[in-house]
Amino acid sequence: MKNIILISAFILLGCNENKLNLKKEITHDFGIVIHGGAGTILKKNMSDEIELKYRNILEVAVKAGHEILKNGGTSQLAVEKSINILEDSPLFNSGKGAVLNSKGYAELDASFMDGKSLNAGAVSGAKKIKNPISAAIKVMENSPHVMLSGNGADEFARQQNLELMNADYFITERRKKNLEKVKSIENISKKTSNKINYDEFYKSQLYGTVGCVALDKHGNLAAGTSTGGMTNKKWNRIGDAPIIGAGTYANNLTCAVSSTGWGEFFIRTVAAFDIAALMEYKNYKIEDAASLVINDKIGKLGGNGGVIAIDKKGNIAMEMNTPGMYRAHMNSEGKILVKIYKDE
Amino acid sequence: MKNIILISAFILLGCNENKLNLKKEITHDFGIVIHGGAGTILKKNMSDEIELKYRNILEVAVKAGHEILKNGGTSQLAVEKSINILEDSPLFNSGKGAVLNSKGYAELDASFMDGKSLNAGAVSGAKKIKNPISAAIKVMENSPHVMLSGNGADEFARQQNLELMNADYFITERRKKNLEKVKSIENISKKTSNKINYDEFYKSQLYGTVGCVALDKHGNLAAGTSTGGMTNKKWNRIGDAPIIGAGTYANNLTCAVSSTGWGEFFIRTVAAFDIAALMEYKNYKIEDAASLVINDKIGKLGGNGGVIAIDKKGNIAMEMNTPGMYRAHMNSEGKILVKIYKDE
Repeated sequence: MKNIILISAFILLGCNENKLNLKKEITHDFGIVIHGGAGTILKKNMSDEIELKYRNILEVAVKAGHEILKNGGTSQLAVEKSINILEDSPLFNSGKGAVLNSKGYAELDASFMDGKSLNAGAVSGAKKIKNPISAAIKVMENSPHVMLSGNGADEFARQQNLELMNADYFITERRKKNLEKVKSIENISKKTSNKINYDEFYKSQLYGTVGCVALDKHGNLAAGTSTGGMTNKKWNRIGDAPIIGAGTYANNLTCAVSSTGWGEFFIRTVAAFDIAALMEYKNYKIEDAASLVINDKIGKLGGNGGVIAIDKKGNIAMEMNTPGMYRAHMNSEGKILVKIYKDE
Repeated sequence: MKNIILISAFILLGCNENKLNLKKEITHDFGIVIHGGAGTILKKNMSDEIELKYRNILEVAVKAGHEILKNGGTSQLAVEKSINILEDSPLFNSGKGAVLNSKGYAELDASFMDGKSLNAGAVSGAKKIKNPISAAIKVMENSPHVMLSGNGADEFARQQNLELMNADYFITERRKKNLEKVKSIENISKKTSNKINYDEFYKSQLYGTVGCVALDKHGNLAAGTSTGGMTNKKWNRIGDAPIIGAGTYANNLTCAVSSTGWGEFFIRTVAAFDIAALMEYKNYKIEDAASLVINDKIGKLGGNGGVIAIDKKGNIAMEMNTPGMYRAHMNSEGKILVKIYKDE
């Protein structure tokens, strides 16, 4: 009798566990996640008006990608079009409104990866391309290379009939002021040996990116990332956004990932690929893989940032070790989620 | 009686297996591996004189690094000095003698990673730096960035008092002829729609790199890679050599890796980091991890190349899916191994 009770208890526990797993592993037939950068985003520094602007544009961008997926379009197209909207908005650090380098102009980085073919494209240090993510896709499709840079990237985009703009198009008053402030903080730091990375404003200027990951009805994953990089960057610095494996990675076997944060740390930890590796080699769930990479690996080195990721079943992660990350998600049922602060 | 015999047989088998494992896992207290590029390197195309030149310089380079390690020097210094010798030799595609881009000059890529701190540095598209691996190390040590590119990389190297050369220094007659030949093959291919990648000479011009991985007496791993990239490359193309995770990776937990091959495939597969991930997450031996990445993952996508790797115990891998890879190894006992062809 005692044995029967014990066995029954095990069966009941087993069933409950299965139910829980089923709940966690709901199969969506498509889905999309976008981000507009992680960083020191605090409610106290944000007016209601500006906050509303961010929430609105995130909603517009995620809905645009979702509409494509709902109509049977590819994850590639959804990623491109959602990112194009964020690139065209002066609110985010990509395309128009990108941060400025030490010489006062924008240098744009972007990359794209297709999870089915494992094909990829990237541009870095472009100065004229209106929509760098579209150029990254063209590099993938129409060049023998994966990564083009500098004037060569602009020239390739021109040959592909992509829209080019002059340097002024990308520059906003806000970014000009930010550059001045960062330069003055760096100058004071040089004179006083103050630990510069403790300055909250300075830290907030180290990053900012936009990105999108999507799963389409055909079961294909795609990921893209686009950025202006770091305010006051020097010597044609390249960050993680155009680096396959660091800023962007997609593989139909596992997941699609787009990173945002202090790029140097995402390069050193090969962050986007590591999330996929933890899923493929250690059977990690997507949230656990993202958490390990962001909190343990990047956090331990002293880096900050976040990632968005989606797996082949439509499970997602939106993980950060910063106070906020502009982000939005829609699943196949059309449920929409727009968040800014970490604790929302 | 039958049971006793069976048990004895199991014990004997077990012991033999342990012995085999012990043999495979000999602990070296330091070691170094270098490569001078993988590719279509065939005995029939090589004179005895040229072959001897390659073997000699590989021996000089590996011995220089080994001497540093033997005297208690760091793996970082061993990697830098070994690669410097290969960069200064016109025989290899890096530094002097690098292949030429479509405009007829060399664009140099390099990266370095330290396995202890997971710190890293890289330059890409440099046009003046005599020893790009030394510039990559300076980026790691003296800049807030990991990766610099183009004129910015040259300017940073100048500020660091590294030796700069004019474009002519890097150009050799052999590479000028190769560029002409590649251009003519590409032109014929455009007119005839011949499948260009089946051309043996053309394929041989897609890659060529130098690299070094080392384990020092302090138990620290380091990896470095330096290259001119691909003959006739366009639009300031960046290959895998300056990409942390693709061309170079080092982590004291697992191994140090330097890749050489058709860079686009090494970027898409995040090849160097994947070898480390297979060791960390799936307990693969270094040879098995290298073989899986080179033969299965890169091979399956249609890519060619090779890697060298060393783990924290001094076990090494020199894996390729091409007919040859210039390579050399020395362990702590001073045993030297210099090889060119795959089946040596």
